[in-house]
Amino acid sequence: MNSIGKIFRVTTFGESHGAAVGGVIDGMPAGVEIDLDRVQYELDRRRPGQSSIVTARNEKDRVKILSGLFEGRTTGTPIGFAVENADQHSGDYDNIRSTFRPSHADYTYTAKYGLRDHRGGGRSSARETIARVVAGAFARQALEQMGVRIYAYTSQVGDLCLDSDYRKYDPQLIECNDVRCPDAVMAGRMHNLIMEVKEAGDTIGGVITGVITGVPAGLGEPVFDKLHARLGAAMLGINAVKGFEYGMGFDGVGRRGSEMLDRFVAGDNGAVHTLSNHSGGIQGGISNGEDIYFRVAFKPVATLLQEVPTVTVDGEETVLKARGRHDPCVLPRAVPVVEAMAAMVILDAWLLNKTVHL
Amino acid sequence: MNSIGKIFRVTTFGESHGAAVGGVIDGMPAGVEIDLDRVQYELDRRRPGQSSIVTARNEKDRVKILSGLFEGRTTGTPIGFAVENADQHSGDYDNIRSTFRPSHADYTYTAKYGLRDHRGGGRSSARETIARVVAGAFARQALEQMGVRIYAYTSQVGDLCLDSDYRKYDPQLIECNDVRCPDAVMAGRMHNLIMEVKEAGDTIGGVITGVITGVPAGLGEPVFDKLHARLGAAMLGINAVKGFEYGMGFDGVGRRGSEMLDRFVAGDNGAVHTLSNHSGGIQGGISNGEDIYFRVAFKPVATLLQEVPTVTVDGEETVLKARGRHDPCVLPRAVPVVEAMAAMVILDAWLLNKTVHL
Amino acid sequence: MNSIGKIFRVTTFGESHGAAVGGVIDGMPAGVEIDLDRVQYELDRRRPGQSSIVTARNEKDRVKILSGLFEGRTTGTPIGFAVENADQHSGDYDNIRSTFRPSHADYTYTAKYGLRDHRGGGRSSARETIARVVAGAFARQALEQMGVRIYAYTSQVGDLCLDSDYRKYDPQLIECNDVRCPDAVMAGRMHNLIMEVKEAGDTIGGVITGVITGVPAGLGEPVFDKLHARLGAAMLGINAVKGFEYGMGFDGVGRRGSEMLDRFVAGDNGAVHTLSNHSGGIQGGISNGEDIYFRVAFKPVATLLQEVPTVTVDGEETVLKARGRHDPCVLPRAVPVVEAMAAMVILDAWLLNKTVHL
Amino acid sequence: MNSIGKIFRVTTFGESHGAAVGGVIDGMPAGVEIDLDRVQYELDRRRPGQSSIVTARNEKDRVKILSGLFEGRTTGTPIGFAVENADQHSGDYDNIRSTFRPSHADYTYTAKYGLRDHRGGGRSSARETIARVVAGAFARQALEQMGVRIYAYTSQVGDLCLDSDYRKYDPQLIECNDVRCPDAVMAGRMHNLIMEVKEAGDTIGGVITGVITGVPAGLGEPVFDKLHARLGAAMLGINAVKGFEYGMGFDGVGRRGSEMLDRFVAGDNGAVHTLSNHSGGIQGGISNGEDIYFRVAFKPVATLLQEVPTVTVDGEETVLKARGRHDPCVLPRAVPVVEAMAAMVILDAWLLNKTVHL
Repeated sequence: MNSIGKIFRVTTFGESHGAAVGGVIDGMPAGVEIDLDRVQYELDRRRPGQSSIVTARNEKDRVKILSGLFEGRTTGTPIGFAVENADQHSGDYDNIRSTFRPSHADYTYTAKYGLRDHRGGGRSSARETIARVVAGAFARQALEQMGVRIYAYTSQVGDLCLDSDYRKYDPQLIECNDVRCPDAVMAGRMHNLIMEVKEAGDTIGGVITGVITGVPAGLGEPVFDKLHARLGAAMLGINAVKGFEYGMGFDGVGRRGSEMLDRFVAGDNGAVHTLSNHSGGIQGGISNGEDIYFRVAFKPVATLLQEVPTVTVDGEETVLKARGRHDPCVLPRAVPVVEAMAAMVILDAWLLNKTVHL
Repeated sequence: MNSIGKIFRVTTFGESHGAAVGGVIDGMPAGVEIDLDRVQYELDRRRPGQSSIVTARNEKDRVKILSGLFEGRTTGTPIGFAVENADQHSGDYDNIRSTFRPSHADYTYTAKYGLRDHRGGGRSSARETIARVVAGAFARQALEQMGVRIYAYTSQVGDLCLDSDYRKYDPQLIECNDVRCPDAVMAGRMHNLIMEVKEAGDTIGGVITGVITGVPAGLGEPVFDKLHARLGAAMLGINAVKGFEYGMGFDGVGRRGSEMLDRFVAGDNGAVHTLSNHSGGIQGGISNGEDIYFRVAFKPVATLLQEVPTVTVDGEETVLKARGRHDPCVLPRAVPVVEAMAAMVILDAWLLNKTVHL
Repeated sequence: MNSIGKIFRVTTFGESHGAAVGGVIDGMPAGVEIDLDRVQYELDRRRPGQSSIVTARNEKDRVKILSGLFEGRTTGTPIGFAVENADQHSGDYDNIRSTFRPSHADYTYTAKYGLRDHRGGGRSSARETIARVVAGAFARQALEQMGVRIYAYTSQVGDLCLDSDYRKYDPQLIECNDVRCPDAVMAGRMHNLIMEVKEAGDTIGGVITGVITGVPAGLGEPVFDKLHARLGAAMLGINAVKGFEYGMGFDGVGRRGSEMLDRFVAGDNGAVHTLSNHSGGIQGGISNGEDIYFRVAFKPVATLLQEVPTVTVDGEETVLKARGRHDPCVLPRAVPVVEAMAAMVILDAWLLNKTVHL
Repeated sequence: MNSIGKIFRVTTFGESHGAAVGGVIDGMPAGVEIDLDRVQYELDRRRPGQSSIVTARNEKDRVKILSGLFEGRTTGTPIGFAVENADQHSGDYDNIRSTFRPSHADYTYTAKYGLRDHRGGGRSSARETIARVVAGAFARQALEQMGVRIYAYTSQVGDLCLDSDYRKYDPQLIECNDVRCPDAVMAGRMHNLIMEVKEAGDTIGGVITGVITGVPAGLGEPVFDKLHARLGAAMLGINAVKGFEYGMGFDGVGRRGSEMLDRFVAGDNGAVHTLSNHSGGIQGGISNGEDIYFRVAFKPVATLLQEVPTVTVDGEETVLKARGRHDPCVLPRAVPVVEAMAAMVILDAWLLNKTVHL
């Protein structure tokens, strides 16, 4: 349903062309100073129209906080918020009112609910992720107080792929280009590929890599709420995501166990560290204090600016050409969404871990 | 924590060397005829000692149903069950009482809980999956009544890999060999590879492919309980799993959107089908009536029958050589676990979908 | 926390003097026609300033629906809504910024959260019930389609008490007077008592009786979500409530079992009814098809318009005199809140009951 | 359904005449020393056959712990447990296989589930409370470490009623008589009344008072998980309970607000206390550090040892006379159940309260 988390629990609402998109953050720890400019900054990173490679829609997406803050700090009560929808061209969608766009949620929503708000994809629109970015920005500020840092970047577009070792890239460079790729040369090639795809009226997918540092050992709740299972579910819940892996992931299956062991070494003050980190910072579903890293696969989105054959709600064959303003590649704008989901999961795990002892 | 599901909700308990492993199935629909031999059959598929490529532990693993059945049918009340632990050689683990096995959960459990039951891995042991297999066997019998079929198979061991198209393989052949691979030739090669790894005191990983047929359109609950997000979380919650993908998964990210569209065609009686199924049977988080298929990555497990350097709980360096009887490759025994998790997720989604209308 | 319900799940947000009070309704069944005037009507019943015996605050309380409706019908997606706060005199509360009002939540919120929004009681204000009334109005419209009717009335104010048999009173008469008591003579006496108490700068409590008709047999989920346990928790969650009983309640404890049996009689079409209804329409936690009735005890609220001795946040003794506009008796305005909570509980139980069978 | 609690979460299973009654305790804090004799002691207090005024059934009710303990301490992993059913005379219930006992759950279970295990009441039997008593005994031992004490006593049987002020009674005297009433004279009168009712083949109800001391300020989660709402739901979930009130409860509704104020006084070390405690230790749904006290109304149970007219499952009129061994008054054996439920609620609130701050 429309909530995520057990203690830090976020509920979202809103359709693409309804009055507003928003949500409620429940379980936000009390007494955390919140910089609302930084919340808006994250929204701006997700915003359409920020560059030539994303949709030209002109959505300002200003967040309005409705409750839960008092004199700049969280009070421990729920934080309601809303972002008004504006610049919606609902008329652009008249032609899909009675037609199913292939590989979209049009058919499945209709099959499930018996009706749908067809304008702009309705609830299945990625516009819903606005609410996640806002909630994630709150979680992130709480986590930063505790020394946890989260970043993500575009590591693959089409067949253009960075090295799998995140340590080779400087997170400071992520925001230096419109692809959100920390390697300037590769970013340029990715940009060109996206432009080429866009001009062809086509779309393309890719991979976002996420990294979380500063997580203490102990986060994650076996056996069904293992930290990576919660991270995976959160990422798989983002529009267009088709896969999730952490640590060595799918690449590790071909290795021998003896190659993959993360050897322990004693650290300072009784801490224990690992020399390598094939595990991706999680062992047995619980963080071990090393960096957590993971990869999220995004399919090429289904809205093409070219004619595609399909069927109407009555089962008749037809041809559809999407109108409107769409992203040829969602990855640049999905980077802050991946970060937001990670922040929510980690803060929730942090709070849950406090309940393990009296 | 130790429960999964919202309506069909399973809670498990038990450590490897405690008195028993078991659980409670809540939300089992009433009036379903249950064949207990089939429950035991699934457990037997998971059982150690069933072939030369799995651990030689002699665990009989007979399930005892404690409640919730009356005259062969479910009553709608919770089903308690337990499987006694037997043939445990706790002494085999004395040497890890104060040592952390690398890439195991030993350190993280200690970091989280402040103490751990070191015998046999305690709660982090894959022995816990017994309870999942039992619960899954109940879910499966309910689903079969509704025409849903679930199967899984070993599709990769090390670098030995089947074709990614599950439709090329006959599920009837899965149980014909000890690897649970539906291609006899490849199964032989996989068997040999596992034996070779075993003799080297090493371990190896692989991939299990899961397939679900007969799911009607409409299952899955946006936005945070999308059907694939629930499936992914369930699979990532299985011991040793490092990745999950469905439909085209990671392979799809390099394609163009125009290549990936699943074109709709009108079926009989107003139904709508797709010609291709790159989506993997789920669009927008909701099943579309096509086959659901997915892949689960298992790392090579960390218990090697060779000496490995590590540290003690006091941070001193030491060398550890595991004793006991361990699997060189967990995939053959993990196949029924993957099926069980899938069955639980689909039945829960089925029941939740009933609440969408009055 | 700030959500209630399992399937029909309502989350509220908002403080008395923040920007808005609102919430999200998740799990609203799809395809239900909604009359928004009736939603506003329920809010108007809860509204301050509606008569001489309630607070004179002039809150218009217009609800704005932000999502989840399309062309007058619910879409099955979450319904976000907000009611702006207006006519707030935050300055009236300056004197309690550093003082604890006795028998309020001022001290406990501070003890729990470390800080509080002192203006108007903040989150502990009964203004939060606005969100419940909105959500309840949606639930009620769904239930009415299924033949379920819910009403509540003021059955006791101070020592003025109606007969305990709800069948003696016509629900049509509840809205005929400002006390919401279906007996005109008693309503007049209650009105006078409240005016007298108000003039003394004091407050008074009472009892609200709730009745639910048309509930089919089968609603309620043993053992921990018995229908009356859910109703009780919902009622006890309303501000100022100190007790809940259903059926014969506390009065029944002095009786013999033989006096209290509800004898079965065969009805038409295989239905079974009871001749008496001491059970209050629920047996073993599950509805039996008879009327459900219950009583809710409200204490006299703690905000007195007279001087009361208390302490400051620093533990110093002081004297406090509340300013502002307060209710001498909350019952008339609490009647729609009781109805709303009942509607939410019954709709959730209705939907949960659909999952008992495949 | 069959789980209670958010962090300390207990799931129960078992029918009266099935193989066993038991459950799983999830979220038990790690590292708590557990005295299993005290767990068994609580079960013995609930046990049939302990005196002349309770049922003569000879159930030994020995609990077997299946997991979650290691060397006498909790490990933070789930605690599975079971109590075998023995001395069941299922044949005593043959006559109700196709008949509905009036004011029992026979009809409602059948209406809901389509079938039922009729033996001994099946799942609706109070035998299920065994699992609650075990779980409560674990919670209680954790709470005692933190200085929280919980006790309950029979304060009313029929019209025989103790003073409502719990401070007049010494909890040490509760176990001195078979009624579990701390006033010896009243206990004698209650005993005689129960014997008289028993001889008449009838039953009688009463009230149990519960008291919780040592709870720090801050427990309870507004707005829907107020501490008293959670306590109320827990108590209303006990078999035969018809009402719950806390603090002044129903008696307070007739008072003026000015009579009911709990005046604050400064305590030592910045603590704040109240001179009176009409609030019952909870204000705004959050504990204030004073004693929590509440009352629970039990109806006279419906199983009479006399002939009662009823109907069969086919709607035909018949006469039923219960066989078997039944309690004429459930209160003495319900005292440990009330305490167990209170312990579970308070421990869960304790753990939840830890998540309010980072």
